Amino acid sequence: MSEKIATIEDVARHAGVSIATVSRALHKPNVVSETTREKVQAAIAATGYTANVMARNLRLNRSGMILLLVPDIGNPFFSAILSGIEKGASQAGYNVLIGDTQNDPEREATYAAYLRSNQADAMILLNGRLPAPLANTPANAAPPVVVACERIPGCALPTVIIDNDEASFIANRHLIELGHTRIAHVSGPPTNILTTDRVAGYRRALEAAGITYDPALLYRGDFSIDSGIAAGRALLADPKTRPTAVSCASDGMAIGVIVAAKEYGLRIPHDVSVVGFDDIPHAAAYDPPITTMRQPRRRLGEQAITLLLDRLGSKGAPDHRETGPVIIPTELIVRQSSGPCPKP
Amino acid sequence: MSEKIATIEDVARHAGVSIATVSRALHKPNVVSETTREKVQAAIAATGYTANVMARNLRLNRSGMILLLVPDIGNPFFSAILSGIEKGASQAGYNVLIGDTQNDPEREATYAAYLRSNQADAMILLNGRLPAPLANTPANAAPPVVVACERIPGCALPTVIIDNDEASFIANRHLIELGHTRIAHVSGPPTNILTTDRVAGYRRALEAAGITYDPALLYRGDFSIDSGIAAGRALLADPKTRPTAVSCASDGMAIGVIVAAKEYGLRIPHDVSVVGFDDIPHAAAYDPPITTMRQPRRRLGEQAITLLLDRLGSKGAPDHRETGPVIIPTELIVRQSSGPCPKP
Repeated sequence: MSEKIATIEDVARHAGVSIATVSRALHKPNVVSETTREKVQAAIAATGYTANVMARNLRLNRSGMILLLVPDIGNPFFSAILSGIEKGASQAGYNVLIGDTQNDPEREATYAAYLRSNQADAMILLNGRLPAPLANTPANAAPPVVVACERIPGCALPTVIIDNDEASFIANRHLIELGHTRIAHVSGPPTNILTTDRVAGYRRALEAAGITYDPALLYRGDFSIDSGIAAGRALLADPKTRPTAVSCASDGMAIGVIVAAKEYGLRIPHDVSVVGFDDIPHAAAYDPPITTMRQPRRRLGEQAITLLLDRLGSKGAPDHRETGPVIIPTELIVRQSSGPCPKP
Repeated sequence: MSEKIATIEDVARHAGVSIATVSRALHKPNVVSETTREKVQAAIAATGYTANVMARNLRLNRSGMILLLVPDIGNPFFSAILSGIEKGASQAGYNVLIGDTQNDPEREATYAAYLRSNQADAMILLNGRLPAPLANTPANAAPPVVVACERIPGCALPTVIIDNDEASFIANRHLIELGHTRIAHVSGPPTNILTTDRVAGYRRALEAAGITYDPALLYRGDFSIDSGIAAGRALLADPKTRPTAVSCASDGMAIGVIVAAKEYGLRIPHDVSVVGFDDIPHAAAYDPPITTMRQPRRRLGEQAITLLLDRLGSKGAPDHRETGPVIIPTELIVRQSSGPCPKP
């Protein structure tokens, strides 16, 4: 850190204003005069103060920040989505601030109020719920808001999702095509919209094959490895009632089910087939490599930021309830964790 | 969303001010008059507008946000640290905003300028580098800044870390005690301070056992599974030069090395022992379960936020160069991926 880098103090000195004024000019340009903005802009140019992004924000009268709400930043599922969003944001001169809501409505409301106070220019919701201050937000909201990953029923905002019902249908049909008829499903938490959609796809696949749905084979997890281990122990302990295949709503839970299966000496896929969801990097690297529904996560992020940048560029956005959501296609990746139903 | 929830519009109507004024009163209270603040505060109380956190921030004249800079939010290593930080922040009435810097100095500078403009009240740096606008920041900086995970050499700011040199020494000594003498090390990127410290610990362990350091056995990865696979292929392809043990600077890279080892038909740990670092949930769930250096990540996060809240509560913080960093102890977790050196 020994080389001389222009600081905000240098900019203030050069512009003949206080540091607080430079700060305000950079981040709340609407509260400073046009003259001050121009003086600060000139000082930034003269001193070379980190400059590009911040100078541009000053010129454009914006904070340059896009706020991203995620329900659980600890789930590696989100990383590639964030990376897609950040790439697009960065190319357009924006930085991203992430808020981890932990499904807490009060946190969601606080972040939304932060957006409303123009401390961010726009927001992407990955958390599946409209924060209270945004209730009744129209499609062409200002600041703009885009919904991604988890759809919000009845919500007018532009939305980018995969078809979770259809993806789950395909994953379970894969097991049925391998001859399985006793197929368990490990879902996410009951309140989650992904759970609703993926359980619907599971039941639709069973029904299409004439298999009766057995509620004892539906286990509620929370997407984590630990909940997958618990699911595997609950479903696989008793050889008399054991399913021959388990579809899971996340790769983490599929890994957990396999850990539990191995505790009972079960071989994957000879004794039990296991299918995951998402295709996180750990799915391909697991032993055995895990069959899963790949979500094109980076593309999902890229599409969400593209929609948001469109809204930032124009005011007349269509009502999403009329145009429908943008659907990103998924892909079944068959690896070694799924195989033919064992002979009885 | 059909129940009636008080919106910012309701607060504005009740207080007899504009929505913009309510926003400013909530988030930049220093730019509105005392009278307006009181009017808005009363309206919030009357309408029940999400309230608690925001009303408290208004009263305390702060944004209520703590900014967290991470180098790569996609690395699951950070999740438990963030969770520890968020718990402590939340208990003190703060919310957390995460900035993913991707090791980009311009992004770091933009986030630091955002802090400087009081759009956040404090910052925690997990990215191992002081953003340019913070150069020469003293220990008792305002807004307060705390460094965690990756120490910044010569930096006066309060710091919470593990002893990476010693942790790496212990991991490699474990392999030496199992009889291994040809031990490879897969490190992080060369510019990373963790790499410097962990490579030093690796070399120190070899030296203490009288083993000559062989540069051909040091492979530079980037902490990811993919770089671990590349490392495993580079190190294990040739039976003549193959090491009998590999220590890795992340669990992801250890998983990658095992994937590559299996490609060559090598059994873990019978033919090759592999040790990871961090103890992410995937380490215990892998087959075989991976021996690793556990970082108490949640405690690290809790300690960092405690230090930061201390600084937010008082002005006279000691210079970290005098008191030294807070060191969180690590623990060697022996699982099935490490075993005795194979007989020649």
